[in-house]
Amino acid sequence: MLTLGIVGYGYWGPNIVRNFMGLADVNVSKLCDANPAALQRAGNLYPHIAMCTEDSDITADRDIDAVAIVTPVFTHYPLTKAALENGKHVFVEKPFTSTIGQAEELIELADRKNRLIMVDHTFLFTGAVRRIKEIIDRGDLGDLRYYDSTRINLGLFQHDINVIWDLAPHDFSILDYLSPNKAVAVCATGHDHFRTGMENIGYVTIYLEGNMIAHFNMNWLSPVKIRSTLIGGTKKMLVWDDLKPDEKIKVYDTGVEVEGKENIYNLLVSYRTGDMWSPKVDHVEALRLEAQYFVDCIRKNEKPVNDGQAGLRIVRMLVATSRSLREGSRQVAL
Amino acid sequence: MLTLGIVGYGYWGPNIVRNFMGLADVNVSKLCDANPAALQRAGNLYPHIAMCTEDSDITADRDIDAVAIVTPVFTHYPLTKAALENGKHVFVEKPFTSTIGQAEELIELADRKNRLIMVDHTFLFTGAVRRIKEIIDRGDLGDLRYYDSTRINLGLFQHDINVIWDLAPHDFSILDYLSPNKAVAVCATGHDHFRTGMENIGYVTIYLEGNMIAHFNMNWLSPVKIRSTLIGGTKKMLVWDDLKPDEKIKVYDTGVEVEGKENIYNLLVSYRTGDMWSPKVDHVEALRLEAQYFVDCIRKNEKPVNDGQAGLRIVRMLVATSRSLREGSRQVAL
Amino acid sequence: MLTLGIVGYGYWGPNIVRNFMGLADVNVSKLCDANPAALQRAGNLYPHIAMCTEDSDITADRDIDAVAIVTPVFTHYPLTKAALENGKHVFVEKPFTSTIGQAEELIELADRKNRLIMVDHTFLFTGAVRRIKEIIDRGDLGDLRYYDSTRINLGLFQHDINVIWDLAPHDFSILDYLSPNKAVAVCATGHDHFRTGMENIGYVTIYLEGNMIAHFNMNWLSPVKIRSTLIGGTKKMLVWDDLKPDEKIKVYDTGVEVEGKENIYNLLVSYRTGDMWSPKVDHVEALRLEAQYFVDCIRKNEKPVNDGQAGLRIVRMLVATSRSLREGSRQVAL
Amino acid sequence: MLTLGIVGYGYWGPNIVRNFMGLADVNVSKLCDANPAALQRAGNLYPHIAMCTEDSDITADRDIDAVAIVTPVFTHYPLTKAALENGKHVFVEKPFTSTIGQAEELIELADRKNRLIMVDHTFLFTGAVRRIKEIIDRGDLGDLRYYDSTRINLGLFQHDINVIWDLAPHDFSILDYLSPNKAVAVCATGHDHFRTGMENIGYVTIYLEGNMIAHFNMNWLSPVKIRSTLIGGTKKMLVWDDLKPDEKIKVYDTGVEVEGKENIYNLLVSYRTGDMWSPKVDHVEALRLEAQYFVDCIRKNEKPVNDGQAGLRIVRMLVATSRSLREGSRQVAL
Repeated sequence: MLTLGIVGYGYWGPNIVRNFMGLADVNVSKLCDANPAALQRAGNLYPHIAMCTEDSDITADRDIDAVAIVTPVFTHYPLTKAALENGKHVFVEKPFTSTIGQAEELIELADRKNRLIMVDHTFLFTGAVRRIKEIIDRGDLGDLRYYDSTRINLGLFQHDINVIWDLAPHDFSILDYLSPNKAVAVCATGHDHFRTGMENIGYVTIYLEGNMIAHFNMNWLSPVKIRSTLIGGTKKMLVWDDLKPDEKIKVYDTGVEVEGKENIYNLLVSYRTGDMWSPKVDHVEALRLEAQYFVDCIRKNEKPVNDGQAGLRIVRMLVATSRSLREGSRQVAL
Repeated sequence: MLTLGIVGYGYWGPNIVRNFMGLADVNVSKLCDANPAALQRAGNLYPHIAMCTEDSDITADRDIDAVAIVTPVFTHYPLTKAALENGKHVFVEKPFTSTIGQAEELIELADRKNRLIMVDHTFLFTGAVRRIKEIIDRGDLGDLRYYDSTRINLGLFQHDINVIWDLAPHDFSILDYLSPNKAVAVCATGHDHFRTGMENIGYVTIYLEGNMIAHFNMNWLSPVKIRSTLIGGTKKMLVWDDLKPDEKIKVYDTGVEVEGKENIYNLLVSYRTGDMWSPKVDHVEALRLEAQYFVDCIRKNEKPVNDGQAGLRIVRMLVATSRSLREGSRQVAL
Repeated sequence: MLTLGIVGYGYWGPNIVRNFMGLADVNVSKLCDANPAALQRAGNLYPHIAMCTEDSDITADRDIDAVAIVTPVFTHYPLTKAALENGKHVFVEKPFTSTIGQAEELIELADRKNRLIMVDHTFLFTGAVRRIKEIIDRGDLGDLRYYDSTRINLGLFQHDINVIWDLAPHDFSILDYLSPNKAVAVCATGHDHFRTGMENIGYVTIYLEGNMIAHFNMNWLSPVKIRSTLIGGTKKMLVWDDLKPDEKIKVYDTGVEVEGKENIYNLLVSYRTGDMWSPKVDHVEALRLEAQYFVDCIRKNEKPVNDGQAGLRIVRMLVATSRSLREGSRQVAL
Repeated sequence: MLTLGIVGYGYWGPNIVRNFMGLADVNVSKLCDANPAALQRAGNLYPHIAMCTEDSDITADRDIDAVAIVTPVFTHYPLTKAALENGKHVFVEKPFTSTIGQAEELIELADRKNRLIMVDHTFLFTGAVRRIKEIIDRGDLGDLRYYDSTRINLGLFQHDINVIWDLAPHDFSILDYLSPNKAVAVCATGHDHFRTGMENIGYVTIYLEGNMIAHFNMNWLSPVKIRSTLIGGTKKMLVWDDLKPDEKIKVYDTGVEVEGKENIYNLLVSYRTGDMWSPKVDHVEALRLEAQYFVDCIRKNEKPVNDGQAGLRIVRMLVATSRSLREGSRQVAL
């Protein structure tokens, strides 16, 4: 039985509480939020959980084995540090930290304390991404050539981070998970229509090793909601539309290959067009699977795929986008 | 009656011939193509048109009033120059020229000769773009804040130009037509998967005056065809999906406005969500309207909206994308 | 404060409990289900509600003011009767009863006891149907000419009723609510592929007064889920696609009218095609509104629109479909 | 070389002329239409074809080998009869004839004269129907259980036939071609909103041998155009949406089977849900293939699949729908 304390009961916190409570081998013992109204909402639903307003009541609680940190990004570093120093395992919201240095320090601390960090890259646990991972790993698409993501909607503006820090962690973590090619440079453009110091529209290009490019379109001001990704491989291409109730993934029997050296010079490109295939996608809630995976990794003393290092890779990309934006969208090496 | 000679009967030429022939006050007298097979195809359909293989047989023909140039971009400058010098009006394919200098010289020449240049920005004459222009001009959308275009498909690679020079003239000319705001800087990223020296995927950001940004996603290697544009205004937003048989245009009763100075500092953004309205779109063939417009502008001695200056503005943007790509995607001022 | 007892905690029961519990002026005091596993699930969530396995513990409970009956259709008559005889108000699942005689007897009993019957025609309380009702009532569509519904999916077979008794109560109650025209005759066709005595595919035509026809396509064996309805009026037509997350309702500026007597003989039909308009649809949960409406009708001593008479009208249509099916799909008068 | 005469140059005639002219081994020698304006339109395009206004100038022309009859249905019988009596092969529009007797007489006459009748069931030659036929014939769907077609749009009213005679020949001929099961009975409902004696909305159920049912929804007054068909088999199900530019056909790995006798009584139905597969569909023009097939059947002296007998089967179904409509939608045996 793992005893878990949770810090933060805002937008995402209720999902964290509900999913960890749904696990047989977890006891959610204590919940912290500085906002009394949030604690009251939680208390009505979960009268048996202890409530507190000071996060140290959780990070220093001797009976707690692990802490879930579901708070704004700027608090991730001090909270995770406190939890690790008290010997707790940590489940922390994305993005992992605000700076590269913070992430590196926490990873080092966790290693020293022999504790686990899992960053909540929830999308890796969706049926769609798990299926796409399978398809790529068994070679169906061939070598990846491009990744093109659009994640736009009419959304609430964040006060502390721009649209890229808000939305890109989803897509950067998916790219990082799916692609065997290492990201090498980042360019970002965007606009801050309201002069708040934070872009509300952002476009990011990532250059990867292995003849591959990725692009990300993010927008808080779209009248329509779009969540779609194209993945182009040498053998086949894949379109993932996350808003479709069915047929989220379509694999097109169309790839691009240049065969033979002379053909490269002749600029010949062979197109194969053929059938389309839409695999069934599992509907289990992603966060449920991820919560169970957190518990399993602790029990087996295994590094999760979404460990601190994965979190750090995403933070490096985010930091590079901010630098590119500041410096006239020039390419920033990773 | 206007006597027209046409140079080029490749992919687009047959549409030019057919549409000019359909006009009551035009006589298509002569057609030129270096390829005998192309001339034979044309001859079967139009036995009364004279055929030739030398373009000077058209640009120097004393009976010809106007010349349509439907050839690859690198030939636009010498052919347009020859036609203008011989006192012909010119209808020329997009993009207008390969360089800014060529465009400037041709505009100056046309002015001196008192002849008209029209650049074939066909999309301006589609029912959809005409309707969107109307909607913007009467203020329905309020002030424009962003323009976001995706034009991707599984297309034939061009041998002489990259995907941006191939596809962006459509979208740049539409943006130039629709937006009252002047473009001031360009950033481009992209990738040349086949090491041909020409990008097959391209992403362009354009910064405009008046608190506005535009973005363009172009790809020759998509398994699916997408032709969609989002236009965000302070009062309403518009989505144009050019592949829909009906409901190409949707206007959302959702805009973004910051009201009052203090609210800017308070980061408040007001969302209005409401009804959607899809205006009927006229289905007349765009090229038919444009051909008639060419004849009318000549008769009335009027400058068309898609004159040499419009062509030059698009060439400036294209040239800037190439420079940005060469220089690590840095912002290039226009 | 209304004290409510609920009989039945199967597929739909949890929604009934949750929504009535969400009301400020209702106390859900007791829940009955013959299945101990169902009671245990409910007990985990609602430890304060008394649980029982005998329905008479609810229908005869002196502290209970109203009973919600969420059980299979063949039990509706005895349970409703017992509740009414004990002076309770009744909220009962659709279809109201298995026979016309049962419905008539219960209506008469409720009137005598001065108690209210509400039949759970949930769809009447959805944002979409409420919006369509508004649009029709203010005359936007003109006179209704046809109603064409498709409700198909890959569904679990019911053991006690055929696909028409399972799915048509939704659509019959919506038609009955929206259309001012009275249904006069019914024809039904269908097929029982598994020789179970119960059709799994059903097609129903209803002829209405006022030059109007309605048709219903129901299928438990479709590989795709469809929930769409076309409503044709003399002035405009409406399409309702209930599966769309947005744009559920589209109103087409196209109607059909025959103007002038001679035109009837000349067979002229005037088509008007124009814009499309998609009104915003409210997303409040329908059952929440319906539950509140039940409480309000009791307090104000008002007849609900979905009273026993409405339930009886739907039962009459269902009984007529069964008779038409048995008698070679002949028209059965209502 | 086959010499062909064509009677009728109205809505469909131009397609017939163009496609037969495109064949290498056909000479379209003469065209007849009673309307001089139609002949003029044809003459502009095809100055080498002889024009006439009397159909006997074609049916009695000694140089003509075959006649294409592209006229209203009530003229099919006399024109086909005249052509056959003069020893011509006949290509005739659907529906074949107005009555069963006419069709039987023409078939008998053609046999006696050793001439071929082909009824223009164009849809059988589309890429979509040919692909579906292949899929069914190789057993992918298992045994067919249902066929459900919707063919609605905002269309011009026909003056001489109702919506069923106008639209159902398409779908009846497709069903007849695809299904190995024989149709045994027909029920039809519908409505004639304009009191013209001809229904503008029609619904048809066809019962087939082999535990199968078919249904057809036809409407001239829909604000949206729908052309979709569901085909349910014991192993898989198929959805055909003819309006999609891509992915017209989707095959769902979902079938319905009752395994074992006891399971029938236990009412168990096994659902298999799985992947979806969308085969590539050929885009060659159907009428081009059909025209070539007509020529090939004549040359090889072979019966086409869409011969007079096929035409007769469709006429029997149409006649049965009319009788069912007249007789209160009762089942009419075929």
